[in-house]
Amino acid sequence: MIAQRPRFDLVVREGLVAIGDATMRVDLGIRDGRIQAIAERIEDATQIVDAKGRLVLPGGVDAHCHLDQPNYGAACADGFRSGTLSAACGGTTTIVPFAMAYASDPLAKTVAAYRLKAEGQALIDYAIHPTIQAASAQTLERDLPDLIRGGYASLKIFTTYDDFRLGDSEILAILKVAAAHGALVMVHAENDAIIAMLKQDLVSRGLVAPRFHAKARPPIAESEAIHRIASFAELTGAEVLIVHVSSRVGLEEVTRARARGVSIHAETCPQYLLLTEADLDRDGLEGAKFMCSPPLRTTDDQEALWTGLVEGSVAIYSSDHSPYRLAGPDGKLRYGPQSRFDQIANGMPGLELRQPLLFSEGYLKGRISLAQFIALSSTNAAERHGIAPQKGSIAIGGDGDLVIWDQERETTVTRDLLHDNTDHTPYEGMRIRGWPVTTIARGEVIVDDGRVLGVAGRGRFVPSKARKA
Amino acid sequence: MIAQRPRFDLVVREGLVAIGDATMRVDLGIRDGRIQAIAERIEDATQIVDAKGRLVLPGGVDAHCHLDQPNYGAACADGFRSGTLSAACGGTTTIVPFAMAYASDPLAKTVAAYRLKAEGQALIDYAIHPTIQAASAQTLERDLPDLIRGGYASLKIFTTYDDFRLGDSEILAILKVAAAHGALVMVHAENDAIIAMLKQDLVSRGLVAPRFHAKARPPIAESEAIHRIASFAELTGAEVLIVHVSSRVGLEEVTRARARGVSIHAETCPQYLLLTEADLDRDGLEGAKFMCSPPLRTTDDQEALWTGLVEGSVAIYSSDHSPYRLAGPDGKLRYGPQSRFDQIANGMPGLELRQPLLFSEGYLKGRISLAQFIALSSTNAAERHGIAPQKGSIAIGGDGDLVIWDQERETTVTRDLLHDNTDHTPYEGMRIRGWPVTTIARGEVIVDDGRVLGVAGRGRFVPSKARKA
Amino acid sequence: MIAQRPRFDLVVREGLVAIGDATMRVDLGIRDGRIQAIAERIEDATQIVDAKGRLVLPGGVDAHCHLDQPNYGAACADGFRSGTLSAACGGTTTIVPFAMAYASDPLAKTVAAYRLKAEGQALIDYAIHPTIQAASAQTLERDLPDLIRGGYASLKIFTTYDDFRLGDSEILAILKVAAAHGALVMVHAENDAIIAMLKQDLVSRGLVAPRFHAKARPPIAESEAIHRIASFAELTGAEVLIVHVSSRVGLEEVTRARARGVSIHAETCPQYLLLTEADLDRDGLEGAKFMCSPPLRTTDDQEALWTGLVEGSVAIYSSDHSPYRLAGPDGKLRYGPQSRFDQIANGMPGLELRQPLLFSEGYLKGRISLAQFIALSSTNAAERHGIAPQKGSIAIGGDGDLVIWDQERETTVTRDLLHDNTDHTPYEGMRIRGWPVTTIARGEVIVDDGRVLGVAGRGRFVPSKARKA
Amino acid sequence: MIAQRPRFDLVVREGLVAIGDATMRVDLGIRDGRIQAIAERIEDATQIVDAKGRLVLPGGVDAHCHLDQPNYGAACADGFRSGTLSAACGGTTTIVPFAMAYASDPLAKTVAAYRLKAEGQALIDYAIHPTIQAASAQTLERDLPDLIRGGYASLKIFTTYDDFRLGDSEILAILKVAAAHGALVMVHAENDAIIAMLKQDLVSRGLVAPRFHAKARPPIAESEAIHRIASFAELTGAEVLIVHVSSRVGLEEVTRARARGVSIHAETCPQYLLLTEADLDRDGLEGAKFMCSPPLRTTDDQEALWTGLVEGSVAIYSSDHSPYRLAGPDGKLRYGPQSRFDQIANGMPGLELRQPLLFSEGYLKGRISLAQFIALSSTNAAERHGIAPQKGSIAIGGDGDLVIWDQERETTVTRDLLHDNTDHTPYEGMRIRGWPVTTIARGEVIVDDGRVLGVAGRGRFVPSKARKA
Repeated sequence: MIAQRPRFDLVVREGLVAIGDATMRVDLGIRDGRIQAIAERIEDATQIVDAKGRLVLPGGVDAHCHLDQPNYGAACADGFRSGTLSAACGGTTTIVPFAMAYASDPLAKTVAAYRLKAEGQALIDYAIHPTIQAASAQTLERDLPDLIRGGYASLKIFTTYDDFRLGDSEILAILKVAAAHGALVMVHAENDAIIAMLKQDLVSRGLVAPRFHAKARPPIAESEAIHRIASFAELTGAEVLIVHVSSRVGLEEVTRARARGVSIHAETCPQYLLLTEADLDRDGLEGAKFMCSPPLRTTDDQEALWTGLVEGSVAIYSSDHSPYRLAGPDGKLRYGPQSRFDQIANGMPGLELRQPLLFSEGYLKGRISLAQFIALSSTNAAERHGIAPQKGSIAIGGDGDLVIWDQERETTVTRDLLHDNTDHTPYEGMRIRGWPVTTIARGEVIVDDGRVLGVAGRGRFVPSKARKA
Repeated sequence: MIAQRPRFDLVVREGLVAIGDATMRVDLGIRDGRIQAIAERIEDATQIVDAKGRLVLPGGVDAHCHLDQPNYGAACADGFRSGTLSAACGGTTTIVPFAMAYASDPLAKTVAAYRLKAEGQALIDYAIHPTIQAASAQTLERDLPDLIRGGYASLKIFTTYDDFRLGDSEILAILKVAAAHGALVMVHAENDAIIAMLKQDLVSRGLVAPRFHAKARPPIAESEAIHRIASFAELTGAEVLIVHVSSRVGLEEVTRARARGVSIHAETCPQYLLLTEADLDRDGLEGAKFMCSPPLRTTDDQEALWTGLVEGSVAIYSSDHSPYRLAGPDGKLRYGPQSRFDQIANGMPGLELRQPLLFSEGYLKGRISLAQFIALSSTNAAERHGIAPQKGSIAIGGDGDLVIWDQERETTVTRDLLHDNTDHTPYEGMRIRGWPVTTIARGEVIVDDGRVLGVAGRGRFVPSKARKA
Repeated sequence: MIAQRPRFDLVVREGLVAIGDATMRVDLGIRDGRIQAIAERIEDATQIVDAKGRLVLPGGVDAHCHLDQPNYGAACADGFRSGTLSAACGGTTTIVPFAMAYASDPLAKTVAAYRLKAEGQALIDYAIHPTIQAASAQTLERDLPDLIRGGYASLKIFTTYDDFRLGDSEILAILKVAAAHGALVMVHAENDAIIAMLKQDLVSRGLVAPRFHAKARPPIAESEAIHRIASFAELTGAEVLIVHVSSRVGLEEVTRARARGVSIHAETCPQYLLLTEADLDRDGLEGAKFMCSPPLRTTDDQEALWTGLVEGSVAIYSSDHSPYRLAGPDGKLRYGPQSRFDQIANGMPGLELRQPLLFSEGYLKGRISLAQFIALSSTNAAERHGIAPQKGSIAIGGDGDLVIWDQERETTVTRDLLHDNTDHTPYEGMRIRGWPVTTIARGEVIVDDGRVLGVAGRGRFVPSKARKA
Repeated sequence: MIAQRPRFDLVVREGLVAIGDATMRVDLGIRDGRIQAIAERIEDATQIVDAKGRLVLPGGVDAHCHLDQPNYGAACADGFRSGTLSAACGGTTTIVPFAMAYASDPLAKTVAAYRLKAEGQALIDYAIHPTIQAASAQTLERDLPDLIRGGYASLKIFTTYDDFRLGDSEILAILKVAAAHGALVMVHAENDAIIAMLKQDLVSRGLVAPRFHAKARPPIAESEAIHRIASFAELTGAEVLIVHVSSRVGLEEVTRARARGVSIHAETCPQYLLLTEADLDRDGLEGAKFMCSPPLRTTDDQEALWTGLVEGSVAIYSSDHSPYRLAGPDGKLRYGPQSRFDQIANGMPGLELRQPLLFSEGYLKGRISLAQFIALSSTNAAERHGIAPQKGSIAIGGDGDLVIWDQERETTVTRDLLHDNTDHTPYEGMRIRGWPVTTIARGEVIVDDGRVLGVAGRGRFVPSKARKA
C-alpha cells in the first residue's frame, strides 16, 4: 500500500490571520510553497504550526538594503549570508538589494556579477535593483530596455554623490525609457550643489563634528531635489519612488505632486521615524553610529513622516540597511577619533529590527493600524517593485511567506541579539513590544523562536516584473 | 446506516472572490449560514453554485431606505415585502429602514410597532434606525439609552421639516447621550430657516415649477447645517453620519471636520452622483420624478462627490429609497398637473438599482476600484451601523451573504425590470453594464438569474450594536 | 484796516505724516476743521503745532464701545463725558457706541433717546450703531430702512444672550434688508445652545470660578456661529462684520468665507491679542477683571489673530470698552467674593489704551507695519462703518483729526493714568512704548501732553452713510 | 527791481491725485524737479498744467526691457533714443534695461560700455541691471560687490539659454554674494534640460511651426526652475525676483515660497495677461509675432496671473520689451517663411502699451484697484529695484514724475500710433480705454497730447541702491 501524500505540507493553525485589510481566526493550508486554503479548520497536513492567539502576517519585504557592495570608503559589512539571516530573524522574507558598479561597466555584467554573490548564500528570496550611473545612447536604447524586460524593472538613480549623480538631462532620458518600458525608478534625492557648498563652508570653518553632517545636508536640499524629480516624473509619465524621505518639507513635495496626479511615491526608514539629529551629538564616537544620508532630522520631521504613514503619502517602509563596522581599518572610524564628518561612512544597519520597530512603535502604540503595518512593511513594496502578488500578502496562490507574531513579548535591544555582521546597533537599549517569533518562507519554517532552521542558499531570485504600459 | 451530513451546505465554486481589499480565485464553503472555508478547491457540499469567471462580492448593505412609513402627504409605496424583494433582486442582502413616528409616541412603542411591520414580510435581513423627534428628559435619560443597548445603536435626526426638526439644544443633548452610549447619529442636515425663507419667496413670486425645488434648497443650506452638526459632534465627541450629502460645499465641511479629528462621515446616494437639477426641468410631469431632498445639484457637485468616493471622505453609498407613485390620490401628483413644488412629495425609488448603478458607473467606468465599490456599498455601512462583521464582508465566521456578478451583462433600465411598488424609475432607458445575477443570503440562494427562490418572511432582525466607549 | 484772517487756522509743522500708506516729512495746513494743504513748508497760520521728529497719524476710530447703556446686571460705569475724555487721551478722535434698548421699543425712539445722552457731553465726534433685537414686519419693512437712510447704516445683532439673541429666520430677514439698503451688520457670534449646555453643566458640578467662564464659551461656539453668519451673508449678499473675534478657529471661518467672495470682515480687540485665559485664574478677585465675552483664549489664538492683522483677515481693531467697576452694589462683584462666573458682568475697559497698546505691541515690536497700524485702528473702521473719508485718514478735504505720537516715551500703565470711570485696568503694570502726546480734533488741540484743552459737548454726531447698492 | 522766482516751477492743478493708496482732489507744486507741496490750491507758479477731472498718477517704472543689446540671432531694434521715446509716450518715466555682454568680459567694462549707449540718447531716466553670466572667484569676491556698491544693486541671471545659463553651484554662489551685499537677483527661470529634450524631440519629428514653441517650453519647465530658485533663496537669504512669470503652476511656487517667508517676488508682463498660445497658431507669418520666452499660455494661466495681481503674489508688471523687426536680414523671419520655431528670435515690443493695457484691461475693467495699478506698474518696481522713494510714487521730496490720464479716451491700437522701432505690434486692432495724455518728468512736460516736448539726452542714470543688511 502506498501512503498518500497529505493534502497540505504545512498548516498554520488557529492564528489571527491578516487577509487583505481584514483579520480572521482561521487555519492556513500550504502546499508546494504556496497558500492553497483558508478555512475554519484544516486537518490533513504533514506539519502543523500552532499559531493560537497569535497574529499571522505576510512576511516582510525590505526593498532597500545594501549587501556585498563595492567599498566606497569603508567596507560593506554584510553579504547575502549574514544579511538574509538577519532579515529572516526579524520577520522579513524577501529583500531587494542594489547591484552597484562603476559607471563604465555594462549594466548586464554588473547585474550578473551581483547575482553570483547571492548564489548559495541567501536564506530568503530576493529581487535586485540595478543602479544606473550613466546614460549613454546604448544604455538608453538597448541595455536598459533589455534589463527591464529581463526581471529588473525597478531601477535606482542618484542626484548626489560624485560617483553616482546624474544631471537633469540624464535623469529625464532615463525616466523616458522607464515610462516606455514600465519600470519604477527609485531616486536618492538631495541637491548636490547645496551639499557641496555647505560642506565646504563647514569644513573651512572647522565645524567637523558628526552633528555638522546634518547641517551640511539640510531638508531644503531634499525638498528641492524631490520637487525636481516630481516635475520630471510629471513630464515623462514615469513612476518614481523617492527613497528614504527624511523631512517634512521633502514629504510635502511628494504629497503635492501626488495630489496633481503624478505617479510618485515616498519611502521612509526606521531611523527617520525614531531617531533625531540630537543623536549625532552624542559623546565621543557615538555620533558616528547615527550618520546616514539624508541625515537624521527633528521631532517635527518625525511627526510629519508618521502622519505620512497614516495618510498614505509614505507608501513604503524600508531599512536602508548600510552596514559598516565602527572599528577596524575598514570601519566608520578608520580616520580615528578625530574623524571629520565628511570622512565617516554614512549608513546604519537595520534589516533585522525594521519590522519589530514599526510593529512596536507604530502598531502597538496606536499610531498606525495593523492593515497599515502590513501595507507599509510588505504589500506596497511588493506591488511597487513588481513582485506581487507572489510576495507581500496572504492570498490563495501566493507564496507561503508568513510571520507569526507574539504581541506580548517584550525585548530589550542589545547588539548580541542581532545577526548582521556589524559591531553595534543604533537602537541599543530600546524596549520593543511584540516579536516575530516564527518565520515561514515558501511554506518552510526557517526561524522559530530564535532557532535558525533554514539553510543558506535556499533563497531564490524573484524577477521584478514591469508594469504594463 | 445514517448518511453523514456533508461538510458544507453550499459551496460557491471558482469565483473571483473579494476578501478584504484583495480578490482571489477560490472556492467558498458555507455551513449553517456562515462562511467557514476559503480554499483553492472545496468538494464536500450539499449544493454547489458555479461562479466560474465571475466576481463574488459581499451582499450589499443599504442603510438608508424608507419602507411602510406613515404618510407625510403622499403614501409610501413600499412595505417590507416589496421593498426587500426589490433590494434582493438588485444584489442587496441587508437593509436598514427608519422607524418613524409622531413626536409624542414613546420610542420603544414606535420601534416595536415597526418591527411588527417586518414580520413575515422581509425576504432579507434588516436592522432599524429609530428617528428621534423630541428630546424630553425621559427620552434623554432613560428611553434613548435603553434603545441603544437594545439593538438600535444607529439613530436618525433632522434639522429641517416641521414634523421632525430639532433645535440646537436638543441636538446637543441627543449627541451627548449618543456619545456616552456608543450610538451613531445620522443627520439630515439642511438649514430650515434658509429653506423657509427661499420657499416663501419663490412661491410668493409664482415660481413653483419643480425646478424651483432646487432653488429653495441651495447647497449653502446644506453646508451650513453640516458645519453646525460637525461642531456639535466635535464638542460632544459623538460619532455622526451626514446622510445624502449632495453638494461640493456640503462635502467640504465633512472633509474639513474629519481633518481635525471629528468623528463624522458622509453618505451619498446614486441620484446625487448620476442626475442633476436639469432633470427637474424636464417636460410636464417628468420633473416631479426627480424631486428629492436635498435636491439634485450640478455636474460640478457630482464631480466633488465622485472624488469623495475615491478619497474616502464619502464613506457610505445608500439609496435613500423613498417610494412614491406618481399617479393616484396618494401619489406625487395628487394636486394635479399644476402642482407647486412644495406640494409634491420628495423622494425617489432606489433599492434595486443602487448596486448596479455604482458597479456600472463607478467600478466598470474606472472611477473607483473594486475594493472601493465593496467598501462603499456594503462594508462601511455594516461597520458604522453596528452590524459588522456579521454583515458587509466575506470573512470566515461571517454570514454567507454573497452576490455573484456578471461583469459582461448589459441591461437597459425599464420600469418592468424592477420589483418595487412604484410606477416609474428615474433611470428609465439608462444602459447598465454588469449585473448581480445571483443573490445568496445566509447561504441560501434567494435570487438566481431573475428567478426569486427565497420566501418572504425569511429575513431576520439584526441588532445594531453600540460601539465601545 | 481790517486784519486779514490767516490762510490756515492750524499748521502741524515738520511731522512725519502718514498719508495713505506712505509717510512724508511735511507740514499740514488746516482751516475750518478740514485739512487743506500738505507741503514742505506752510507759513501763514493762526496756530502752529511743532511735530518735529514725531509721527503724525490720523486720529483713532474706535467703532466698538459701550457707554451709558441700560444695566444688564451691573452698571455701565461710563457715559459720553468720561468715555470720550478717556478716548481722546488715548489718541482716539471718533467713537461709535451702541444704542441698545428693550426689544419692544421702536428703533427710532431708542436711537433718539441715545442721541440725547451724548448731547453736551461728548468731547469728540461719534456715530451710533443701533442694536436690532427683534424682526417684526414693521421693523423689516419700514423702521430699519428709515434708520439706515437716516444715518445709521451700521447695525448690531447678537446670536447669544437671552435679551438680544435672534433666531436664524430673524437674522436672515435683517440681512436681506441690510443688503437691499446698503447697511453693514455687526454680529456678536457665539452659539447660544452650546454656551447654555456647558454653563449648566459647569454650574451643576460646582465649577464656578472665573476660569470656568472660558470653559463655558469654547472657541467652537464662536466658529460655529461665524460659519453660520458667513453662510447667511453669502446667501443674502449682505456685508457683515464679526465683532471681537477671539479664536484661531473663529478667524479661520472668516478667512474661508472671504476667500470664496463673501463680504465678511473680522474685528478683534486688545484683550484677545495681549491677555489669555490664564489671567482668569489669577488669585481671588483678580480673575473677575478679565471676564469678557467671548472669553480670553490661548497664546495660540493670539498668534492666529496677530497673523490675521498682518494678512488682512482681521480688518478692524476696536476696544469693546464695556466699563464695569469691580466694587460697589452695581459692580462686577456685587454677589461678593464667592460670585459664580455666571453672576459676574462681562466686559473690560479699553477706550484709552487701545491705540497705545497696538502701537507699542504691534508696530514698535515689528509685528505690523505703520500703515497696518493706521488701517486697523482708524481707516478701516471709518470706511466699513460709513464715516470715511471724513474720518479715518489724513487727506485733503477730510476732518483735521490728528494724533502726534512720541515714539520714544515709555509709560507704565497704572489706574491713575486713565480717565475712564472704572476702578481698575487689566493692563496694570504693563510697560508701553510710544504715546499719543497730542490729540487734535477738527483742527482743535483737545489734549496736549496730558492737559485736556477741549470742552465737553464739542463732539458732534457723524452720520453713518449707507454704501451704494 | 529783480523779479523774484515764483515759489513753484510747475503746478499741476485740480487733478485727482494718487498719494499712497488714496486719491485726493488737490494741486501739486513742483520745484527743482521735486514735488514740494500738495494742497487744495497752489497759486505761485511759473507754469500751470490743468488736470481738472483727470487722474494724476506717478510715472510708470518699467524695470524689464531690452535696448541696444548684442545680437543673439536677430537684431535688437531699439536703442535708448527710440526706446525711451516709446516709453514716455506710454506714460513711463523710468526704465531699467539690461547690460548684457559676453561671459568673458569684466562686469565693470560691460556696464561702462552700456552707460555710454544711453548718453545723449535717453529721454527719461534709467537705472541698469547687469547680467551675470559667470561666477569666477574674482567675480564673486571683488567685481560683484563693487558693482552692487556702485549703484547696480539689481542683477539678472538665467537658468536657460546656452549663452547665459548658470548651474546650481554658480547660482548659489551669486545669491550668497547678493544676500551679503543687499542686491536683488532677477531670475529667468526655466529648466534648460526639459526644454532641450522637448525641442530636440519636436524638431526631430518635424513639428516646427511657431505653436510648437509653446510645447517645447511647458509650464512645468517654469515651475521646476522657480521652485529651485526659491529653495536657493531660502537657503541663502537672498532676495529674488522671478521675471516674466507666465503660468499658474509657476506662480504657485512663488506664492508657496512667500508663505513660508522666502524673500521672493513675481513679475509678469502684458503678453501673459492678454494673449494666449492660440495666437502662436495664427496664419502664416503671424504666429512669429507672438513668440516670446516663456511662451504664451492658456486662459487658465491668465486667470491665475490676474488673481496674483489682485492678491499680491505678483508684485511687478513690466514689459519685457524685446524689440525685433519681422522683416529684413536681422528680423525674426530671416530664415524665411518656413522658419522653424527654434530659428525665430523670441521677444515682443511692449514699452509703450504696457501702462495703457493694464489701465484699460485691469483698472477700468474692475479687475484691479487704482492703488494696485500704481503699485504694480510703478511703486513696487521702484522699491524692489532700489530707486524709491525718488521714483515710483507721488511724495513730497520725490521726483516730479507724473502722468495725467484721460479716463474717457478710447484708442484703437495700430502700428502707426507707436514710437518704437519695430514693424508690428501684437495688439494691433485692440480697443483701449483711458490714455496717458501728459507725461511729466522731473517737473518737465515731455509729452503732451501726442506732442513730444522733451529732448533726447535729458534722461539721467539713477543708481540702484542696495538694501541694508
